[in-house]
Amino acid sequence: MSEKKKELNEIKNLRSKPKKTLRVTSASLESIIYKPFKVLDHGFIRVIDYMGDDSAIVQSARVSYGEGTKKVSNDSGLIRYLMKNWHTTPFEMCEIKLHIKLPIFIARQWIRHRTANVNEYSARYSILDKEFYIPKAQNMSSQSKTNKQGREGSLSKKDTKKFLEILKDDAERNYKHYEDMLNEKQNGEIKNENKKGLSRELARINLTLNTYTQWYWKIDLHNLLHFLYLREDTHAQYEIQAYAEIILNKIVKRWVPHTYNAFKEFQLESFNLSRTATEIIKQRLKGKKISYEKSGLNKREWNELTRRFGIK
Amino acid sequence: MSEKKKELNEIKNLRSKPKKTLRVTSASLESIIYKPFKVLDHGFIRVIDYMGDDSAIVQSARVSYGEGTKKVSNDSGLIRYLMKNWHTTPFEMCEIKLHIKLPIFIARQWIRHRTANVNEYSARYSILDKEFYIPKAQNMSSQSKTNKQGREGSLSKKDTKKFLEILKDDAERNYKHYEDMLNEKQNGEIKNENKKGLSRELARINLTLNTYTQWYWKIDLHNLLHFLYLREDTHAQYEIQAYAEIILNKIVKRWVPHTYNAFKEFQLESFNLSRTATEIIKQRLKGKKISYEKSGLNKREWNELTRRFGIK
Amino acid sequence: MSEKKKELNEIKNLRSKPKKTLRVTSASLESIIYKPFKVLDHGFIRVIDYMGDDSAIVQSARVSYGEGTKKVSNDSGLIRYLMKNWHTTPFEMCEIKLHIKLPIFIARQWIRHRTANVNEYSARYSILDKEFYIPKAQNMSSQSKTNKQGREGSLSKKDTKKFLEILKDDAERNYKHYEDMLNEKQNGEIKNENKKGLSRELARINLTLNTYTQWYWKIDLHNLLHFLYLREDTHAQYEIQAYAEIILNKIVKRWVPHTYNAFKEFQLESFNLSRTATEIIKQRLKGKKISYEKSGLNKREWNELTRRFGIK
Amino acid sequence: MSEKKKELNEIKNLRSKPKKTLRVTSASLESIIYKPFKVLDHGFIRVIDYMGDDSAIVQSARVSYGEGTKKVSNDSGLIRYLMKNWHTTPFEMCEIKLHIKLPIFIARQWIRHRTANVNEYSARYSILDKEFYIPKAQNMSSQSKTNKQGREGSLSKKDTKKFLEILKDDAERNYKHYEDMLNEKQNGEIKNENKKGLSRELARINLTLNTYTQWYWKIDLHNLLHFLYLREDTHAQYEIQAYAEIILNKIVKRWVPHTYNAFKEFQLESFNLSRTATEIIKQRLKGKKISYEKSGLNKREWNELTRRFGIK
Repeated sequence: MSEKKKELNEIKNLRSKPKKTLRVTSASLESIIYKPFKVLDHGFIRVIDYMGDDSAIVQSARVSYGEGTKKVSNDSGLIRYLMKNWHTTPFEMCEIKLHIKLPIFIARQWIRHRTANVNEYSARYSILDKEFYIPKAQNMSSQSKTNKQGREGSLSKKDTKKFLEILKDDAERNYKHYEDMLNEKQNGEIKNENKKGLSRELARINLTLNTYTQWYWKIDLHNLLHFLYLREDTHAQYEIQAYAEIILNKIVKRWVPHTYNAFKEFQLESFNLSRTATEIIKQRLKGKKISYEKSGLNKREWNELTRRFGIK
Repeated sequence: MSEKKKELNEIKNLRSKPKKTLRVTSASLESIIYKPFKVLDHGFIRVIDYMGDDSAIVQSARVSYGEGTKKVSNDSGLIRYLMKNWHTTPFEMCEIKLHIKLPIFIARQWIRHRTANVNEYSARYSILDKEFYIPKAQNMSSQSKTNKQGREGSLSKKDTKKFLEILKDDAERNYKHYEDMLNEKQNGEIKNENKKGLSRELARINLTLNTYTQWYWKIDLHNLLHFLYLREDTHAQYEIQAYAEIILNKIVKRWVPHTYNAFKEFQLESFNLSRTATEIIKQRLKGKKISYEKSGLNKREWNELTRRFGIK
Repeated sequence: MSEKKKELNEIKNLRSKPKKTLRVTSASLESIIYKPFKVLDHGFIRVIDYMGDDSAIVQSARVSYGEGTKKVSNDSGLIRYLMKNWHTTPFEMCEIKLHIKLPIFIARQWIRHRTANVNEYSARYSILDKEFYIPKAQNMSSQSKTNKQGREGSLSKKDTKKFLEILKDDAERNYKHYEDMLNEKQNGEIKNENKKGLSRELARINLTLNTYTQWYWKIDLHNLLHFLYLREDTHAQYEIQAYAEIILNKIVKRWVPHTYNAFKEFQLESFNLSRTATEIIKQRLKGKKISYEKSGLNKREWNELTRRFGIK
Repeated sequence: MSEKKKELNEIKNLRSKPKKTLRVTSASLESIIYKPFKVLDHGFIRVIDYMGDDSAIVQSARVSYGEGTKKVSNDSGLIRYLMKNWHTTPFEMCEIKLHIKLPIFIARQWIRHRTANVNEYSARYSILDKEFYIPKAQNMSSQSKTNKQGREGSLSKKDTKKFLEILKDDAERNYKHYEDMLNEKQNGEIKNENKKGLSRELARINLTLNTYTQWYWKIDLHNLLHFLYLREDTHAQYEIQAYAEIILNKIVKRWVPHTYNAFKEFQLESFNLSRTATEIIKQRLKGKKISYEKSGLNKREWNELTRRFGIK
């Protein structure tokens, strides 16, 4: 039986044994638990476990604020209020555990979010899968001139093709050399019975940064939203956005729909007006025009403001 | 219906509605979920939610170490190995949420453990219960002479009685004054319709440190064990030990029995021999006696060592 | 020599011994190091140590972004950019250590900020000072009707006087009983040679929540600013605002002046427009009026928006 | 002027400007501040800033324990006591900031220690140095048979040579392709004026895991010691041990010599006897022999115990 088939069977098996629980349960999340969402060319995200839902947030807030929360008539309203006013601790009362397969260069960005629990597949103990991230042609953009950390504009067809070949060839050659040095394949097959292989912890250093790794990642909802705030943003690298987008719209939306709405309203799609920008808008609303030169904003800030509010 | 009765009904209600889940489930923990364990005179601990069990720890370890874990034949053996060798991340993959009622002076010690999520009942929003911790007579010990932070030996019966009266009278008087200043009782009854009360956030400053508060406390298993390591210890204040003891023996033992055993074996009842003490034991095992004077240990360390190993 | 005098001498002593260092140094902060700023009636804040300044933030950012930062011409501009765009890690590269004396009920709010290092004076080991927070008459406000956690409006002169007496009497009586039970005063004087005192860890439970405690508190600049964002806010309890105000305007302003300005511009005095509010402002700027009923905001949100922008 | 020379000049410059400070100062650490210690083939560690020293730990402990610490006669004794008894908060009161250059595969292990502040050189913004870790021949060990995550025994000379060539060739080829795709060298030289390069955030995915990166890493002393406990251990990968060894013996030893000694005594070179092992040693000391079969230990535990104490 192939590796893929074994995995599918395991998921089918896990999904075939419902148990009884007295805990808070999210029917919508149960419908997708264990099932992988595909991301990029070989990556995935799947929910392994969770704790709490929107009602658990409300319950925790009511423990804190006691009768103080009675005035807010419903759960959705209370969650909006908590989100708007930085009452973050109730959102920490929900927890989720994900199984994620992702390229190493993305794992390096991801791990910078420190308030999470992680168990990563160890290439000191075991042999990594022969899977590398190769971008789609349409994502092979050139370096942005205005944004030092971004991409922008496309390459020539010829260059795109050539670079994709480089990426593919180099990853494959380096993986083949990895197996050669190990003197062993991932399936356990020994390449040459008469000789010893290089230790795993050393052989792996030959692999490229687009090699896939995998981990279990467990995080509370407040910190997950902060991760999504930074990584679902257009300034994040496209490849991590792809993961954030799935977590937000396929998982969080199902798990805690009221929180999802409040998060979009007050964080993801909100606009933080600086003190100076607030003053400019105030003057504008009174009919006074303020020019860029007198605005107190720098060019970048000015452009962002006028674009967002459709003013000149 | 009284407050107590309402709570009991709510628990009965929560326990009467089993749901289906595909998540990992601990039957033994389900049998006590929501039910309070009594602690001290008015405190309690109850499990509100949990994620994972012993099998989830093993599963996470196997993700990390891949085939590297196959040699360990069973779950109990792998958990022992992880505990012994400081592989802490798999234990972080389990999470528990508790509802705890405890005196404020204990809450102040408890909160020093930073790696947890907390929602505490807010005395800015709401009125605190009229409940104070009054020790039992047998716990009214005098100040230890040898241990600056401990208690030791008993007081005279007369003093014990007198001090218990002081504690009770002062707590009650201060609470009565709290209600007077609020001009309101906890049940909402206004004391004097014609006047305004002092704000809650100020009136509460008159309360004594043995007043009970309550919170939701959520923590992962690794950090919970570290909390128990420090607070179930005989050097911890008796009153927090009482809580740690319940969490350890009533909750952790049910939830993750293999982890419970490994924790006792390698942490709770283990003995850390310093470099110097290791040398002394080594010499002893060879039949050489080393005197206190030549041991390199100070008196306290020497006493602890000789007591634990029954040597002179 | 009195306790106060001893402290003043110690500070004078510490300030009289300049040493040479090759580290980054803030001359402005050196001018106040060790000196206490008075807060409330008996509290204080003093700087004990610090690491880094505005230039260290810039230096750390340049390590991260390499040549990417060259375009920003000066330190102040780069710090503004970092603050605006949530590049928080460079601010974590500065650290400060404060010695703070504060009432226990404030310490309880303060400690909820978990990303700090704390060494608190232990009332298990030692005897607490006989000092309690008694509000000034003008701060003895009544409970707010609209804000469950706030105060608003004043009490009658008679009630104010009466309540202040209650607070004072109860704190003093409880402290006297604390000493009686300890059978010892803070200066070491034994009250009655013939009897044993109650252990310190128990006697202290009789004290009121306005008793002063003290601690060393060490935190990085990013987390300090987050603390100030929440606690310098008008919704925070007045007494913790008093501390936040000193830290912000007496310490942070001296230590990292560029960061202080950027923090005020982009956080403290900024305004977060929700998605819906952004739309309303956009329509307004085009000359379209949107009524409360059609706004999609609730009453509280509507009021806050119209008040801030002077619109109806 | 070459890159290296520029760096040396910068360090000379930084070290030539002593300033006055009233802060705690470590003369021994000042003597090496900014100077790099070489690690592996291209790595280094240098101290950029620090806060506190042994005396600051003692000072913090005395704030916590007040007169309770007076009995311990000297700083060294108090630090031993704190280390032995898990009083970790005083050690958190010291902080250090290091500049480290290290291979990416080591950076991936390092970053798992979450309680630190990090600013890493960003390969989204800037171009990485052309430097790769190539092991020395004597470190090219084969995979351990007994320890799934370790290396053990040497390869044939021929294989060693061959593998080193693979590592070198693959790293260099992949870096050359990285430059080709960027269409730019690190020094800013454009390779072909007529075409656009691939964005940096994508081109870098072609690099190998032994490519060097660099970061500023700031951590408190307690968490630094925990890092060293795990990474200076013989079970850690050799390459991270090399860094830990420098930090421990070149930096910590200079900075906080009393803490360094206590750390070796009670942690690094101590031995944690499990409950069962404690019983075995106790019986042994009484002259009773216990066989492996009756010991209750597994083979690995038994071997470790008997080896350490020279018993059979």
